[in-house]
Amino acid sequence: MSQVTIDSNEVDIVIAAFHSDLTSFLEEWRPMFSRFHLIIVQDPDLKEDLKIPKGFNVDIYTKSDIEKLFTSSGVSKFSGYACRFFGYLVSKRKYIISLDDDCSPAKDTNGDLVDIVTQHITNLKTPATPLFFNTLYDPYRKGADFVRGYPFSLRSGVPCVLSCGLWLNLADYDAPTQALKPDLRNSRYVDAVMTIPKYSLMPMSGINIAFDREIVGPAILPALKLTKEGKFRWETMEDIWCGLVVKVVCDHLQLGVKTGIPYVWRNERGSAIDSLKKEWEGVKLVEELVPFFQTLKLSSDAVTAEACVTEIAAAIKKGSHSVLDGAADNIVEWVKIRKEFESRVLG
Amino acid sequence: MSQVTIDSNEVDIVIAAFHSDLTSFLEEWRPMFSRFHLIIVQDPDLKEDLKIPKGFNVDIYTKSDIEKLFTSSGVSKFSGYACRFFGYLVSKRKYIISLDDDCSPAKDTNGDLVDIVTQHITNLKTPATPLFFNTLYDPYRKGADFVRGYPFSLRSGVPCVLSCGLWLNLADYDAPTQALKPDLRNSRYVDAVMTIPKYSLMPMSGINIAFDREIVGPAILPALKLTKEGKFRWETMEDIWCGLVVKVVCDHLQLGVKTGIPYVWRNERGSAIDSLKKEWEGVKLVEELVPFFQTLKLSSDAVTAEACVTEIAAAIKKGSHSVLDGAADNIVEWVKIRKEFESRVLG
Repeated sequence: MSQVTIDSNEVDIVIAAFHSDLTSFLEEWRPMFSRFHLIIVQDPDLKEDLKIPKGFNVDIYTKSDIEKLFTSSGVSKFSGYACRFFGYLVSKRKYIISLDDDCSPAKDTNGDLVDIVTQHITNLKTPATPLFFNTLYDPYRKGADFVRGYPFSLRSGVPCVLSCGLWLNLADYDAPTQALKPDLRNSRYVDAVMTIPKYSLMPMSGINIAFDREIVGPAILPALKLTKEGKFRWETMEDIWCGLVVKVVCDHLQLGVKTGIPYVWRNERGSAIDSLKKEWEGVKLVEELVPFFQTLKLSSDAVTAEACVTEIAAAIKKGSHSVLDGAADNIVEWVKIRKEFESRVLG
Repeated sequence: MSQVTIDSNEVDIVIAAFHSDLTSFLEEWRPMFSRFHLIIVQDPDLKEDLKIPKGFNVDIYTKSDIEKLFTSSGVSKFSGYACRFFGYLVSKRKYIISLDDDCSPAKDTNGDLVDIVTQHITNLKTPATPLFFNTLYDPYRKGADFVRGYPFSLRSGVPCVLSCGLWLNLADYDAPTQALKPDLRNSRYVDAVMTIPKYSLMPMSGINIAFDREIVGPAILPALKLTKEGKFRWETMEDIWCGLVVKVVCDHLQLGVKTGIPYVWRNERGSAIDSLKKEWEGVKLVEELVPFFQTLKLSSDAVTAEACVTEIAAAIKKGSHSVLDGAADNIVEWVKIRKEFESRVLG
């Protein structure tokens, strides 16, 4: 790995709490998390008080904090997995690392615990190469370089603003896959990180990601939260939506998205069979969203993520889809509240 | 790996011979190559007769075979690394696997010898997914699947026609990288194969590749052979050119290109310092070629690789670059000779 220096003041670790007792989760992560600031957002549907072990630098946000900013009618936007987005909003630091509370540290191929903070921040602090594919993966990694034929003019890369980590054991499959193949586990540790090329969209998973909040924060919000979604990862759509939006924004602004290491170990989580009984609104929506985003052209006036998502909201409004209309409204509201919130913090 | 059945009649292994004694090379590969047909093309500059161990099903082509088809003035097109292309021309089988004669079998993470034939043909016989990025690499591989959010309509993929393998030990760097970092060795075995997304170009290396000759054969030819190129991989451009052409053709025809496993072990090969004294025509050319190919649009009439490369030749001719003009002429000639040759074989 390239050597990067990590200032603990530039990183917030955001954790969405669905369980009141976070003791064992945080103890497992203590070696990697102890020197960083944690933002824990309690799922507004979770009634009991959180149990947090001592020795962490942590701020906790609950339903009442959400109500102050979004009124009580806005709380449902942040229920379940979406509560983390409230943490993204209140963060004041440059980088956010976001992790589901069903994840444990994974082991790398040498049997060492994976330090997701160091790897994610390394991914974000070294350039990305979306404009040409390097067959030996990340050219900036120790022991690697650009392969013969890689244009020299593109070897300085572009800034990386999003790092998508992966999962061992329980991978991030959707409910149909999970239900059809209940024994499917990911045991392959692929020791690589790579840039997702320009114009290629990917399924972003919120389980284990990091991003540059200052640059792409406006694009990472709970815009598309389906009312029929449950409390299971395999049902959620809001991170998939964010991934499509943020990739389009990055492609437009010449910014990079990486995928690969760091891995986390995902623990077992019930059966997906029940989820199959629901209507698959999310699965159907993706079929519409992908061509929409693949063909979307943003204007040259859009030079910030905020301007890009505002254009995306306007483009959605031109269609006529009730669910997406709501997503467009959510984008506009998010940009507004984010601005208000930032001016209040700075003012 | 997905289980595929490999009919030995559908595979030709093409080897360009730069050394007259191929005994140790072929003995190393015997376990993987013995049941397949080999096409060995002797570098026309190599004077001594080839030494080939017994027990292989092999056809050997020499300078006089090249002269019969291309006259003596055309022989220089096939000197050095380019002699393999003559093997691609005379092959009658569906798949070609092509390997440099400085490669030995690599070992995988379990210490087992890598069977490049099985892995390349598996890559070619399972679909590719260029239209959306799967973060868990090849979704068809055993133990893997499509990640949540991957559109169901794209999960059947597209036919894969090109498999680009990788290198351990001496990686495929260019002369400047090789000269600046003489100790740089690739020791990272990344156990993954993936599709290179649509619209992303890559540096194709001819060291260890396989392709579907019937579908993309017309695109893989020694079109851009620089007269100043030597006999070293780090100087060659013709495979880089082919990679740009074949990827544009695949993107247009909705065909797939994969990269990753299988690896080969590349053995040591002199010093690149001497190569640095030469003029870097190839390096400069790539800077022009990449934007040209990134913006090239082929017409909807071009529904075969042959029609695509014919359009590419015409597009090149519209520019005015003496080196590229020659490449355009070579494409046209290749298509013509390939046709004549095929009709002669069939007739």
